[in-house]
Amino acid sequence: MESREVSLSQRPVGMPKDDDFAVASVEVPDPQDGQVQVRNVCMSVDPYMRGRMVDRKSYVPPFQIGETLNGGAIGKVIRSRNEDFAEGDYVQSNYGWREAFTVEAKALTKLGDLTAPASAYLGVLGMPGMTAYVGLLEVGALKDGETVFVSGAAGAVGSIVGQIAKLKDCRVIGSAGNADKVSWLTNDLGFDYAFDYHGGDLLNQLREGAPDGLDVYFDNVGGDHLQAALFHMRPFGRLPLCGAISMYNDTEPRPGPNNLTMAIGLGLTLRGFIVSHFSHLNEQFRSDMETWVSSGEIKYQETILDGIDRAAEAFIGLFTGANTGKMIVNLTG
Amino acid sequence: MESREVSLSQRPVGMPKDDDFAVASVEVPDPQDGQVQVRNVCMSVDPYMRGRMVDRKSYVPPFQIGETLNGGAIGKVIRSRNEDFAEGDYVQSNYGWREAFTVEAKALTKLGDLTAPASAYLGVLGMPGMTAYVGLLEVGALKDGETVFVSGAAGAVGSIVGQIAKLKDCRVIGSAGNADKVSWLTNDLGFDYAFDYHGGDLLNQLREGAPDGLDVYFDNVGGDHLQAALFHMRPFGRLPLCGAISMYNDTEPRPGPNNLTMAIGLGLTLRGFIVSHFSHLNEQFRSDMETWVSSGEIKYQETILDGIDRAAEAFIGLFTGANTGKMIVNLTG
Repeated sequence: MESREVSLSQRPVGMPKDDDFAVASVEVPDPQDGQVQVRNVCMSVDPYMRGRMVDRKSYVPPFQIGETLNGGAIGKVIRSRNEDFAEGDYVQSNYGWREAFTVEAKALTKLGDLTAPASAYLGVLGMPGMTAYVGLLEVGALKDGETVFVSGAAGAVGSIVGQIAKLKDCRVIGSAGNADKVSWLTNDLGFDYAFDYHGGDLLNQLREGAPDGLDVYFDNVGGDHLQAALFHMRPFGRLPLCGAISMYNDTEPRPGPNNLTMAIGLGLTLRGFIVSHFSHLNEQFRSDMETWVSSGEIKYQETILDGIDRAAEAFIGLFTGANTGKMIVNLTG
Repeated sequence: MESREVSLSQRPVGMPKDDDFAVASVEVPDPQDGQVQVRNVCMSVDPYMRGRMVDRKSYVPPFQIGETLNGGAIGKVIRSRNEDFAEGDYVQSNYGWREAFTVEAKALTKLGDLTAPASAYLGVLGMPGMTAYVGLLEVGALKDGETVFVSGAAGAVGSIVGQIAKLKDCRVIGSAGNADKVSWLTNDLGFDYAFDYHGGDLLNQLREGAPDGLDVYFDNVGGDHLQAALFHMRPFGRLPLCGAISMYNDTEPRPGPNNLTMAIGLGLTLRGFIVSHFSHLNEQFRSDMETWVSSGEIKYQETILDGIDRAAEAFIGLFTGANTGKMIVNLTG
């Protein structure tokens, strides 16, 4: 059995390009005792993967050139030599960027009964949804009725942040990269105010959307967005630092916000986090989010590209704004 | 009765200069019913006052040109027409930068029995000591045995931060502005490692002093210090943002740390605060700190200038490193 797999042919410099990636065919070994063979249904591309393409120490080790990349994937068991897994089981793994694989059972999480299409477990019901949930409620310590600004609001994380905040009776402001996304946020997701960050001054947009200032700024973007949000925070505001997608392709370190000292007088908290810091909340998240998605209280959208050959394109698209909601590579074709 | 008082003759631009300040003699009115007349024993100059000399909205209103400045002072009641205050009582007030004044009693805090010289209630037992206490223990959430770096470590706040951390069995690293201060930190206050920040690369000094990284960075300085500390933080480190004295005389906004995104993967918390956010802990602070000072577990030093004519010089000295420990203006002469 063969699997086509994606690796780095070279480390991207600045914006990743198609020829930084290579697809090759690999033989998938038969499962040995205790092992399971999986065919992926879909795989995830996520902005954090850009950091792993740089050769430096970080919270996850860097990808190596010529080695198959990895990342979130949902697959179906096709052969099992482990009693906990049966043919047809849906499993979640970190063995993305490939069509199929054989692993020890402990590398797999059985999804059980799905309450949504499998791909949702890479988005709203998976890592990005969990990131929004813990980032807003735990790190951001959101209180009912507050005013929340989320950047990258039409992305996989941002779109869920805004909707959770609406469930908590908050006023929600979002920034996104084009008019269609802005319209989706306000017309479909219930954001109170959204704007295209290309279209004008961030500070004026924030004043318009949140005349009384911000209690929480959920940062997916970094750079100018963080600086503008700092200028507009209310006393004791919280800023969960989730990502900085505007800076991931920088080739030189970029200066930080020039107004960070405002945090002193206002008593602001800037707190970085990654989702794995909160894995003790996995079950609570899945229960809450499956309820909200099933009831329609939280909606989601996916941008789906078909086939492993388009995985690099999907990944690059994260940085050009090609996705609305979660970017997914479908591997069932 | 006359009081000499200090006002701004003009707003300082960059480093404050002598002629930004003016001293004038003012008639002190007799106390009316309910009022108290006070002669100041000593007054405080503090770095935060620099911010109030700029005409902008902040957590305290700006000083006005030609109006007597204010700030912390300890005085003695000389005439009282309020039953709660008697001649000879020591009182704390915000009526510094003057020799004497008459006010409503509610503007005064009676100090009761002093367990240290009056000036200590402007330093280790006053606002700077309280700032160190709540900043390290509440904002920094210090745990026994952690590694702490404090900048401006020979200042009124920093010198107390380091000693509280030593009481909590922490490893303590401090930066200061000259060799005498560095020697005071390690030889007299028990710091594990201290260095002159003029003398070389901050990052290498931190690697030397804290080879395993920092759990808490108490920031009094901002700028390069904050950036270097961020590079050296351990996972889940906390950074109480207390001050940014290196930036207070900037005439243009200065870029922030270029490595703030490190907070994401490491789960760092940067939290700004001012001491008044924690006034519910005033009594606990005074009790703890009086105990520590009386037992000699916490030592303090003062740099004392005599007379209201030297108040401006004392203030300017905060930015040139003229003080070791608390800068005090003695007004008993």
